Amino acid sequence: MDAITLYNTLSRSKEPFKPINEGFVGIYVCGPTVYGDAHLGHAKSYTTFDVVVRYFRYMGYRVRYVQNITDVGHLTDDGDQGEDKLAKQSKLERLEPMEVAEKYTNRYFEDMDKLGLLRPDITPRASGHIPEQIDMIEKLIEQNHAYVANGNVYFDVTSDPGYGQLSGRTLEAAESGTRISAASDKRHPSDFALWKKADDSHIMKWNSPWGIGYPGWHIECSAMSTKYLGNSFDIHGGGLENQFPHHECEIAQSTCAHGNTHEHPFVRYWMHNNMVTLNGQKMGKSLGNAISLRQFYDGSHKLLSRSWEPVVIRYFLLQSHYRSTTDFSEPALLAAEKGYQNLIAIIHQLSVVSSKEKDGEEWPFQDFKKEVLSAMNDDFNTAQAIAILTTHLKKIRSQLAINSAPANLDEIMSFVEVFMKDVLGIWQASDASAKGSKSSQGDELITDLMELIIQLRKNARTEKNWAMSDQIRDRLREKGIQIMDTPEGTKWEFSN
Amino acid sequence: MDAITLYNTLSRSKEPFKPINEGFVGIYVCGPTVYGDAHLGHAKSYTTFDVVVRYFRYMGYRVRYVQNITDVGHLTDDGDQGEDKLAKQSKLERLEPMEVAEKYTNRYFEDMDKLGLLRPDITPRASGHIPEQIDMIEKLIEQNHAYVANGNVYFDVTSDPGYGQLSGRTLEAAESGTRISAASDKRHPSDFALWKKADDSHIMKWNSPWGIGYPGWHIECSAMSTKYLGNSFDIHGGGLENQFPHHECEIAQSTCAHGNTHEHPFVRYWMHNNMVTLNGQKMGKSLGNAISLRQFYDGSHKLLSRSWEPVVIRYFLLQSHYRSTTDFSEPALLAAEKGYQNLIAIIHQLSVVSSKEKDGEEWPFQDFKKEVLSAMNDDFNTAQAIAILTTHLKKIRSQLAINSAPANLDEIMSFVEVFMKDVLGIWQASDASAKGSKSSQGDELITDLMELIIQLRKNARTEKNWAMSDQIRDRLREKGIQIMDTPEGTKWEFSN
Repeated sequence: MDAITLYNTLSRSKEPFKPINEGFVGIYVCGPTVYGDAHLGHAKSYTTFDVVVRYFRYMGYRVRYVQNITDVGHLTDDGDQGEDKLAKQSKLERLEPMEVAEKYTNRYFEDMDKLGLLRPDITPRASGHIPEQIDMIEKLIEQNHAYVANGNVYFDVTSDPGYGQLSGRTLEAAESGTRISAASDKRHPSDFALWKKADDSHIMKWNSPWGIGYPGWHIECSAMSTKYLGNSFDIHGGGLENQFPHHECEIAQSTCAHGNTHEHPFVRYWMHNNMVTLNGQKMGKSLGNAISLRQFYDGSHKLLSRSWEPVVIRYFLLQSHYRSTTDFSEPALLAAEKGYQNLIAIIHQLSVVSSKEKDGEEWPFQDFKKEVLSAMNDDFNTAQAIAILTTHLKKIRSQLAINSAPANLDEIMSFVEVFMKDVLGIWQASDASAKGSKSSQGDELITDLMELIIQLRKNARTEKNWAMSDQIRDRLREKGIQIMDTPEGTKWEFSN
Repeated sequence: MDAITLYNTLSRSKEPFKPINEGFVGIYVCGPTVYGDAHLGHAKSYTTFDVVVRYFRYMGYRVRYVQNITDVGHLTDDGDQGEDKLAKQSKLERLEPMEVAEKYTNRYFEDMDKLGLLRPDITPRASGHIPEQIDMIEKLIEQNHAYVANGNVYFDVTSDPGYGQLSGRTLEAAESGTRISAASDKRHPSDFALWKKADDSHIMKWNSPWGIGYPGWHIECSAMSTKYLGNSFDIHGGGLENQFPHHECEIAQSTCAHGNTHEHPFVRYWMHNNMVTLNGQKMGKSLGNAISLRQFYDGSHKLLSRSWEPVVIRYFLLQSHYRSTTDFSEPALLAAEKGYQNLIAIIHQLSVVSSKEKDGEEWPFQDFKKEVLSAMNDDFNTAQAIAILTTHLKKIRSQLAINSAPANLDEIMSFVEVFMKDVLGIWQASDASAKGSKSSQGDELITDLMELIIQLRKNARTEKNWAMSDQIRDRLREKGIQIMDTPEGTKWEFSN
């Protein structure tokens, strides 16, 4: 099997993945700022890294997945001006900022659970790591990479020769493009806040060596990734929009504080997922065109004509590569739904093939599996993996229709199920129940009732009461249940 | 309506509840130490305070409910010796302590969600409030209530004339009963750690003015309750076993740091729930006789013969007063299940009474409601409230059997539903579906299939095929469905 290759934003190229510690992956992904509900753009980002983590685990790696919760310090404006997003929302909702954080953290996980995302191993809160952030800022000041001005602490970008390596933005370009506002106490327009002084009206604030204040947004990710993954770790992920300034600033802070080098970098691989667009425009809360996951789930947004199952949204997202934009429209979502249902229907059909039908030529299973995994190894190309999976299964089905099933069908279906479930995360409990593997109490009752109905229909047929037999079949069809009379007796399934 | 009265451990008496701020309640409850799964003892404590919060809200109060998560500092031994519980578990599970905390925090909320507990408004983590704890310790040192010894900081109990007010334990009694171990640097055996020095092998540690270390267990609750509820707040809750030393130490710390007085106390009302016992012995993880909620839910513990629905466990707990011990046994749980199912069956029967049957004399609804609420106002006597509710409903049902339903039945049932749902939290979605308010897809299909079966049975009866008609009825009965031929046609329900 080929190694996993992934696109490293730092080198602007695909590289084979080599872990720092053999068999282990440390990954940090920028989590949500918990002041509102997650929308489709968030779903794309977290689904991307969920599949990355799942695939590493599938390939036998032990993964520590850290995803932070930003509950303080993320301002409404990227230039160190503006209000704290949490504090602003708490004024609107008349709650204590931590109540806002708690509320939206709970809602975030609820939404992501529904989308089939595995919980990260550690979800550190920014407000819960103030000492770690202060320690790091102190180190930067000691090493002349940061300076104090009026109770604020700024990172001195001119002290870092590597600044701009991720985004490609040079200081010269920044200088010509931006002006320091008159009120600013920054030495250079690209200098960014590590610590901000809090005035009396500010509600989230802590003591620090520089007075009462709160951390800048970027320092939390440097401090928390270091705490839980070490000074140098494998993968850092986030949305493309985080590349600059957020990730550029993280690299500057961490590299200068820890003395990272090219051989021993802060982060080996930087992964960025592309955005979700709506009519060609980026979807974002601050842009006012976001459709939240909750709105998808209950169909309440004005741009939606109906509700959408979480698994369909997940399938829709995985149908495009994470580095491509996903343009949302309801017809596109409908197509994804059809595609998903089709795939599940084929899998279901192939799962109920009887043993004696499995007497055909063996399917080239190793090639099939290799094709699927090669797509995944090629920078986690889920779109291609799904396409390959579907094509093979369709071919097997059409062969079944004219001939018989491959002798190694069980092996194939077992791989498909594990891949759908463990890697793509689009194998839902309800799909599984179609296979009878595990069913809820309600499902059991349905099976019991169907057994009774089939018995009654059999009685009717014995008595040559064809009218009643047909009536039963038709009534069931209306309810989405198909009855098939086979040599082994009457079978039923949900029609697709 | 009478005021809510509650038993205040501090005064050893029931007192009418008077909030600090009219219409508002601030409540802090000691949350779990996240190093293992929650057991029935935890369920009793958190269900108790869940109902307290729900009842205050029902009575129109705006409640801020804070419940901490202890993820550092809780030692395996109460005397400031022993290992950190999280660190110990992380060695066993070979995880980073924060992975252990994350895992068991997630599992804790999953278990409590199933039990119908509302999420607290703020769930602060001890490890996330190190600066707040350090600030408070500094204040105590400044005011000569604490002293530094070898990198440890201890609270000086002799400096606090109020020490012992909650538990009634005097320092003299403590002195005669305990010896300072030779290795201890405490001045008095009852002095307790505010900050503990960490050696190199210690994994969870932070910088502090006294060197690298970690906070003592008690200080977190003082610091976090102050941060989110203020220097003086309404109610502090916890298990009886927390009364000493934990809550006694909290009072000492907070009162000395903030200069609380009798008129302006740290906490106005201290509420303690009693324990769950198993064969007369306290159930506890450290005692080795705990049955976790998960084990109840899936029936996997050796003392359990089957699995138990969360709502039955909740009903079981609410059937005894929170200040009484709950002695667990499976027969007792079975009795609770029967009681709950009975109550739901009666409610269901009374909910489907047709309008024209509601022509009887009015039920004394105001008296009924007053009786129920009086029980709740009397120190949250859920056991009595449930008994009153059940008695009234049974009386109404027996009247219905011989005569007709009260004309004000709708009003009664609406109160019952709200009380069951909002206050007791034992009105589950599945119960609601029995009323047809909202049903899942599976439920709809069951309704459809039953409609078809009833139609087929009708056909059989029309053809005088009594054997088949009876066969259908018997088969359904086996599946837990009862068919009733009534003047308005054939009805069906799940048998209880």
